[in-house]
Amino acid sequence: MTDTPGQRGSYYERHIFFCLNHRDTGEASCAQHQAQEAFDHCKRLVKTQGLAGPGQVRVNKAGCLDRCAGGPVCVVYPEAVWYTYVDQADVEEIVESHLKHGVVVERLITPAHLGR
Amino acid sequence: MTDTPGQRGSYYERHIFFCLNHRDTGEASCAQHQAQEAFDHCKRLVKTQGLAGPGQVRVNKAGCLDRCAGGPVCVVYPEAVWYTYVDQADVEEIVESHLKHGVVVERLITPAHLGR
Repeated sequence: MTDTPGQRGSYYERHIFFCLNHRDTGEASCAQHQAQEAFDHCKRLVKTQGLAGPGQVRVNKAGCLDRCAGGPVCVVYPEAVWYTYVDQADVEEIVESHLKHGVVVERLITPAHLGR
Repeated sequence: MTDTPGQRGSYYERHIFFCLNHRDTGEASCAQHQAQEAFDHCKRLVKTQGLAGPGQVRVNKAGCLDRCAGGPVCVVYPEAVWYTYVDQADVEEIVESHLKHGVVVERLITPAHLGR
């Protein structure tokens, strides 16, 4: 049975995942770069602005997204847009522009060549 | 600056997130339903079949996806297809059909009304 993905509505209009991975080995990981604080800030902003929930936005914790060289990273689906953020102002811009209005924040996009 | 999401290629062709949330409160959570084992099984299958990596498939841990009533759940992006799996055979079917060949496994789709 074949099927065309995407015919159904998405349960969340936008689903953002923050890598919160922590490494004890001394290797770089997003958790060393205030990923938890960024996640908390994003979650709080989305909630207080009434954007959270089915049909709207979900802010999610994730394990290693395997793009450590671009970290700290988050990814917004279904658009599959990856961001490298530096501070809380970056998170605020992602929420206001992308999560709220669907406009990608070009300046924060993770360079395509950066993987693990 | 406006932009059309999706113009760029997706870093992963398919990105599957397993809810591994565990609750200590006695409330239902995916971790009570062999979510970790399902994640491990999926990860192993994808790796051994050479499907893992950029341009291909990423199997990811996630925190609560907030569809506990349909749990244990996983979601495949960018298609935004949600699955409720029961056993390892279900996971194998998701890998073989959806992750490998892009064909949605209709019988495992999480009913639309099931949220938290």
